[in-house]
Amino acid sequence: MVEKEQLEGITAKKWGDFSEWYNQVVLKAGLADYSPIKGFMVVLPRGYALWEKIQKHFDFEIARHKVSNVYYPLLIPERFFKKEAEHAAGFAPELAWLEKKEEGERLAIRPTSETIMYDSFSKMVRSWRDLPLRFNQWCSVLRWEVKQTKLFLRTREFLWQEGHCVYENEADCVSEALAFLNEYKKLCEELLAIPVIAGEKTVLERFAGAKQTFTIEAFMPDGKALQMGTSHNLGQNFAKTFNVKFLDKGGKEQTAWQNSWGMSTRLIGALVMVHSDDKGLVLPPKVAPAKAVIVPILFEKSKKEVLKKAMELSEQLVEFGAFVDARDNYSAGWKFNEWELVGVPVRFEVGPKDIEKKQAVLVRRDTGEKRAVKFLDAKKELAKTLEQMQKDMYFRAKKFLEKSTVGAKNWQEFEQGIEERKLVLAFFCEKKDCEEKIRQKTTASSRCIPFGQKNAAGKCVACGQAANGKSFFAKAY
Amino acid sequence: MVEKEQLEGITAKKWGDFSEWYNQVVLKAGLADYSPIKGFMVVLPRGYALWEKIQKHFDFEIARHKVSNVYYPLLIPERFFKKEAEHAAGFAPELAWLEKKEEGERLAIRPTSETIMYDSFSKMVRSWRDLPLRFNQWCSVLRWEVKQTKLFLRTREFLWQEGHCVYENEADCVSEALAFLNEYKKLCEELLAIPVIAGEKTVLERFAGAKQTFTIEAFMPDGKALQMGTSHNLGQNFAKTFNVKFLDKGGKEQTAWQNSWGMSTRLIGALVMVHSDDKGLVLPPKVAPAKAVIVPILFEKSKKEVLKKAMELSEQLVEFGAFVDARDNYSAGWKFNEWELVGVPVRFEVGPKDIEKKQAVLVRRDTGEKRAVKFLDAKKELAKTLEQMQKDMYFRAKKFLEKSTVGAKNWQEFEQGIEERKLVLAFFCEKKDCEEKIRQKTTASSRCIPFGQKNAAGKCVACGQAANGKSFFAKAY
Repeated sequence: MVEKEQLEGITAKKWGDFSEWYNQVVLKAGLADYSPIKGFMVVLPRGYALWEKIQKHFDFEIARHKVSNVYYPLLIPERFFKKEAEHAAGFAPELAWLEKKEEGERLAIRPTSETIMYDSFSKMVRSWRDLPLRFNQWCSVLRWEVKQTKLFLRTREFLWQEGHCVYENEADCVSEALAFLNEYKKLCEELLAIPVIAGEKTVLERFAGAKQTFTIEAFMPDGKALQMGTSHNLGQNFAKTFNVKFLDKGGKEQTAWQNSWGMSTRLIGALVMVHSDDKGLVLPPKVAPAKAVIVPILFEKSKKEVLKKAMELSEQLVEFGAFVDARDNYSAGWKFNEWELVGVPVRFEVGPKDIEKKQAVLVRRDTGEKRAVKFLDAKKELAKTLEQMQKDMYFRAKKFLEKSTVGAKNWQEFEQGIEERKLVLAFFCEKKDCEEKIRQKTTASSRCIPFGQKNAAGKCVACGQAANGKSFFAKAY
Repeated sequence: MVEKEQLEGITAKKWGDFSEWYNQVVLKAGLADYSPIKGFMVVLPRGYALWEKIQKHFDFEIARHKVSNVYYPLLIPERFFKKEAEHAAGFAPELAWLEKKEEGERLAIRPTSETIMYDSFSKMVRSWRDLPLRFNQWCSVLRWEVKQTKLFLRTREFLWQEGHCVYENEADCVSEALAFLNEYKKLCEELLAIPVIAGEKTVLERFAGAKQTFTIEAFMPDGKALQMGTSHNLGQNFAKTFNVKFLDKGGKEQTAWQNSWGMSTRLIGALVMVHSDDKGLVLPPKVAPAKAVIVPILFEKSKKEVLKKAMELSEQLVEFGAFVDARDNYSAGWKFNEWELVGVPVRFEVGPKDIEKKQAVLVRRDTGEKRAVKFLDAKKELAKTLEQMQKDMYFRAKKFLEKSTVGAKNWQEFEQGIEERKLVLAFFCEKKDCEEKIRQKTTASSRCIPFGQKNAAGKCVACGQAANGKSFFAKAY
């Protein structure tokens, strides 16, 4: 009794209509759905499970940095936005205000929580003994500007974490801002198998109110850069306006230094774009909730024995979350397609002939590579395959990034690189005028001034004047 | 160099000014703080850590019930509220609307997510194969009605989880609604050491739009009941209005059955009220983030040796999150007070004389009981003490509940019981008029009609007419 309805697979091609392909993978793999309100999304079980993996990984890492999780209110009073002028200007167009007022004052849904947290910090921080103070919260934020929804990538509401720390001096503040950025880098590279470039943002790309913004940037298959996480050295800007002061060891009042850092569910969008293919989702094993599915090949005669063996195999592989798809109203082929669509990293096929040979057929989701493994070796072979797959996926993505990166020695090369949807590295003077010229003429923007450049000087690709270093440019999400 | 400033301990008495005592424990133990906007709160690290323990416990349990976590939008369009009349009427006064509209329609911050989820379910559920569908989300909700803030107990915004499931028939729907209620009961009793009474709500106390509401109720030391969690058999009310239908095995279209269930950070309020004392927070060991603190008793001569031994002890107890308070600008007494205030379950004191005897002094937070334990036995003794403490705390709370419960055979006994701030069990006819009369005359309300009553009949305590069973009544939070 094989199900008649067809599995609704991916019909668009990754290297054909990338945008439509992306939407189909997200929807059909059950990661997310559109909401009846424009700009909002529903994160469905398979998508939320990925977010939980990211959360668990990151919570573990930041606990080692002595960061504590907290929860601050959803609503922010208008007076707080007005305190830090740059910050206010940056977020003003995106704020969603409530009809209700509190004592005559307007309230907005948080677009980020610097202001409400730092008002609280000003009461909490009194002495050098209270520092460093390191808080993080997992929540949703709302930024109304988005016009066109793109699931996980551009939505008015999104889930994120925001870290906010206070320090006695700028050295600690910057060094930890960089340490948190490095945690994002490790998260992307080690868990999500997405290589990133770390660097500093230019003035135009800086967070509203920050002294410095550090970023990690990934490069998507459609030739656009994606910002994966940022951390900000806020300097003393907010501390001054929100009065975050402390008595130092000598009993003297000092203004504190602060950083903030965030990453969001957009990482899931990157995960889809970088690794998936025309059959659907491909997940790096480390982030996949279940690492293996066992599909029994059922014939009437051998059914009972095959199912029994499949169950035994799943028990052997229980630590990998392996499960048997024993449904008998779907064909084996239908099941193969379904589990490929949702991205289970490894499939075991077990048929009557395999049982004779005391083996199962192991199939890798990323390469489609098949090989027979003895039941006795299944656990070891699965572990090895998952490890190899995680590495291979990272290196394939890394290769693509390297292949996509070009240098531009002059404006002509620069324009050509951008037009060919490359990540272009070029000398840049960091002047606002040049950055705006580039944006207008090419729609590309500076992604970052990469860390660790050797002391080099050259001529700005836009104006030809002296430049002290290079910047990456690309079109971006 | 002992710190001069005094530890700001609890100055109010639990059995004197309960309300002030509660506020002081929450604030001074660092669980939460007020926000600059009325009705909102900040959940601080020590409070949020308790919420994370609750989340972890509950996520594990509901995964066993095959519930998946998801995230639905913060905002709900007005038309959704209008669909289910009772639900709309119940939540209308509490809604916070946005100034911005979407295509002319008003949007409110979610007070609960039935409507937006069930609109989505109507698209998701097609066949009996899609059922049961079991979703849960952790989020914050906003209900504007609150006039007077009480941290964790009455705030406009609070953190909670809301479960929403869809079934083929009412039997499954009700049986799982009761299963989830039982998970709340286990959470309260086994993790938080708070005994609860399980039962069904009367018509007046029922969730807006539900067919039945099930509840667990705890009883607080100030003689007020506190609702700890509810689950609702929504019947087909929402399924009809939101069009949640499915094709049954025979290919016939059927309307689905639904339940929803929730509990919130108010559990943390109950935890504080039930167990804490005039020295501060007392935590059941299972929910305490760190189970033990080691305080070295420092004298100049033996300091090095004592600190070394304390560190060794903490390494031995690392699985309990034990840590050494090695600060030398605070006296041992100051440290005792501080860790009592924040509720670390066990304190070890290690002084030079203890080292001679190869022992530490173990002090229980709940009883203050002290005893010497050999270093070699410390791990075993700590485990034993924590287990005993968890049990003792539950039984003390259980004893208080039993002591506070009285039966009332007539109106006079009923009024007296309520006046004496008891939990009063009395025959009740379940008529709305009677329930309203009781509310008006005593300010008490029906807390629940307890499960498992033997078939008994009597006369309603309010009207004297025939009653088929008893209900619990009390003043309530």
